[in-house]
Amino acid sequence: MSAATLSFSTKARRTPESPISYFMEKAIGNPNLISLAAGLVDSESLPAGPVARAMAEILNDPKAAKAALQYGTTRGYLPLLEKIAGHIATLDGTTAQAMGISARDVMVTTGSQQLLYMLSELLLDPEDIVIVESPSYFVFHSVLAGTGVRVVSVPMDDDGMKTGELEATLTRLDAAGELHRVKLIYTVDYFQNPTGRTLSVERRRDFMRIVHAFAAKQRILVLEDAAYRELRYEGPELPSLKSLDAGNRHVIYAGTFSKPLSPGMKTGYAIVPNDLVDHLIRLKGNHDFGSNNLSQYVIHHLIANGEYAKHVETLKNVYREKRDTMLNALQAEFADMPEVHWTKPRGGMFVWLTMPTAIPTTPGGAFIENSIREGVLFIPGEFGHVDDRGPVPKTEARISFGDAKIPQILEGIKRLRKAAGAAAP
Amino acid sequence: MSAATLSFSTKARRTPESPISYFMEKAIGNPNLISLAAGLVDSESLPAGPVARAMAEILNDPKAAKAALQYGTTRGYLPLLEKIAGHIATLDGTTAQAMGISARDVMVTTGSQQLLYMLSELLLDPEDIVIVESPSYFVFHSVLAGTGVRVVSVPMDDDGMKTGELEATLTRLDAAGELHRVKLIYTVDYFQNPTGRTLSVERRRDFMRIVHAFAAKQRILVLEDAAYRELRYEGPELPSLKSLDAGNRHVIYAGTFSKPLSPGMKTGYAIVPNDLVDHLIRLKGNHDFGSNNLSQYVIHHLIANGEYAKHVETLKNVYREKRDTMLNALQAEFADMPEVHWTKPRGGMFVWLTMPTAIPTTPGGAFIENSIREGVLFIPGEFGHVDDRGPVPKTEARISFGDAKIPQILEGIKRLRKAAGAAAP
Repeated sequence: MSAATLSFSTKARRTPESPISYFMEKAIGNPNLISLAAGLVDSESLPAGPVARAMAEILNDPKAAKAALQYGTTRGYLPLLEKIAGHIATLDGTTAQAMGISARDVMVTTGSQQLLYMLSELLLDPEDIVIVESPSYFVFHSVLAGTGVRVVSVPMDDDGMKTGELEATLTRLDAAGELHRVKLIYTVDYFQNPTGRTLSVERRRDFMRIVHAFAAKQRILVLEDAAYRELRYEGPELPSLKSLDAGNRHVIYAGTFSKPLSPGMKTGYAIVPNDLVDHLIRLKGNHDFGSNNLSQYVIHHLIANGEYAKHVETLKNVYREKRDTMLNALQAEFADMPEVHWTKPRGGMFVWLTMPTAIPTTPGGAFIENSIREGVLFIPGEFGHVDDRGPVPKTEARISFGDAKIPQILEGIKRLRKAAGAAAP
Repeated sequence: MSAATLSFSTKARRTPESPISYFMEKAIGNPNLISLAAGLVDSESLPAGPVARAMAEILNDPKAAKAALQYGTTRGYLPLLEKIAGHIATLDGTTAQAMGISARDVMVTTGSQQLLYMLSELLLDPEDIVIVESPSYFVFHSVLAGTGVRVVSVPMDDDGMKTGELEATLTRLDAAGELHRVKLIYTVDYFQNPTGRTLSVERRRDFMRIVHAFAAKQRILVLEDAAYRELRYEGPELPSLKSLDAGNRHVIYAGTFSKPLSPGMKTGYAIVPNDLVDHLIRLKGNHDFGSNNLSQYVIHHLIANGEYAKHVETLKNVYREKRDTMLNALQAEFADMPEVHWTKPRGGMFVWLTMPTAIPTTPGGAFIENSIREGVLFIPGEFGHVDDRGPVPKTEARISFGDAKIPQILEGIKRLRKAAGAAAP
């Protein structure tokens, strides 16, 4: 009927296809597949009982039911916003007031992903500069690609982003007359996706010192993606960058109930500097004028009745055991391959594996093909990197203990070892 | 600490502040306010019982609970997508197969608003052209403003968009060498927001004839916003533009469960041409990688067990009575002002009022200020117009019988009459 093909927007044409779909499809035929690739949460511990009870209580109360099933506001359910401000302050060992935040600075989003997207839309024009850790969360890379910005990476080590390198990078950009284009620094500072690494206390203080020092010349915002923060299995609670941001000026703190409660309710939130929050809410008005209201009521209910806190404690035990299983299995299976090493995350759900140069993790390579044949899936590490500092590492992999059950983790690591053995030259 | 102010993206700077906030804030101080402005649905009839039972059944079934509380796919819950394809085909008196659609062409969105937003993002660059009805849904105008497109309006009458004018507009754009910039025609073709008007059968056929005739030169997509379709209180079911789009080539059908079920579950959907759907899903992957999964399970459950269909029948009776109340009240109160006229919608929740020239509905004008003082709120009609054809009408208003209770509707129209009387010169 029509010969004309569709033409897409400049932005759409900049947005790459998900790098994951290629081998997800390759793997789909294998019913015995063990996926250490997906970012799913542990299915067995999902809070069906508490959610069912909260739903019943809300829906059997005529007034609450009417409000929860009706449109909410774009910003989110006010009592939930208040709980969130208090909750994050408590994690930081202080009060919302002392942190300089209130419900007025909080907004609800459809998972924290929506915050990442909207913030990019609100701030970024092509040729702007965004600073990320290397490696970083690959879905955010895809969002950034859509905006046409220049992504500048800062190396990490086991203490998270190297703040010395961050400072050097900003100084270099300043010298090049490009500081005014630097709009955002993105960090997943707790149990990072993909590496499992956490920004140390010293680095946190240094990070904010740097941001504050450059603020006289350029107000650089920090997107602190704290999605995994509450899944902490050992070590002390660390102060958020937000808590070190006196005056609530620089840090957008992105949190979510997907990891510590249930991704099926897809409810995230952000704590946002005062002069930014209304702009984000206006943009959200155009996106959807508010996330799922019923889920916001349920989550508020679960925080208020203490079930949320209880659930997080349960989850920590569940994931700690799975993490230990994975780390022990790696230790056992790869004992004879000392060139293989991996991170030891103190929380979250990801371990970052580095293979020897001879066993690249590249899509299409022998290791990944063998893995798929053996029935185990990982995420090639290169998807987490950008190439602003030269060729990206080709020997890394993200493996997750999120959804795999303990016997699957054990078997999955066995299969990885087999695949690696067969791939070794 | 920092003197630097924030700089926003070009897109953000193009996006206007919501025109509504100004007088919403003015009105907030009045506890006796009757809002005929809001697009809320009827609170009393929200399906608390059916949703509570569906939630309990899903959450008490361990397998279903785990799936519903876990991440879903970006596209949406497959059994729900299948139900949607069948449901729309049934409304159109046919089968999905006969319509040339399947679950593969359906996607779930966070309300239909998200579809409007993402489609605009996917297709539109600055200087592209989008054709809308005049007046049209003002939130979509705000989305379009963000994209930097040129909005070209086509007049309506009681049979909806004047298709003769549509054809003349496209012919004119073609002659001007601008047809290649025409990417989208937007129509709310059932019980339109804001006018309550419906595109007639003859116009529907003519509309698609025109789109197909121009397709040899330019594939123009049609965004059929059918948000109110199921709230039909009289007259026959009319065929969707989608059902008249042989080969599923031109029409994106946007539907929602917000109006016929519950906005608190914020679940919309779209039926999309084959070569477009994966692009939209990829974009949604960056936005949020999937809308609320739990609500999708609940809605599927309610469709499967027949509760959804029953609820829609109940709603029709509820809204029909409210509509009749509003129309009768207008008739009674404005009997002595024969220059005032209004639409008689056969469905939906909006009546479009036209006041005499001497009583403009403009924000800041005497009528609206009197109304706020009397305690009744409406939406000024000018927000629904764009000025591509000269100055926009200043005497129209959208009034809704959605959420107001019957006594409030009666009192609200009385107050409107008082405000109009006091505003008349």
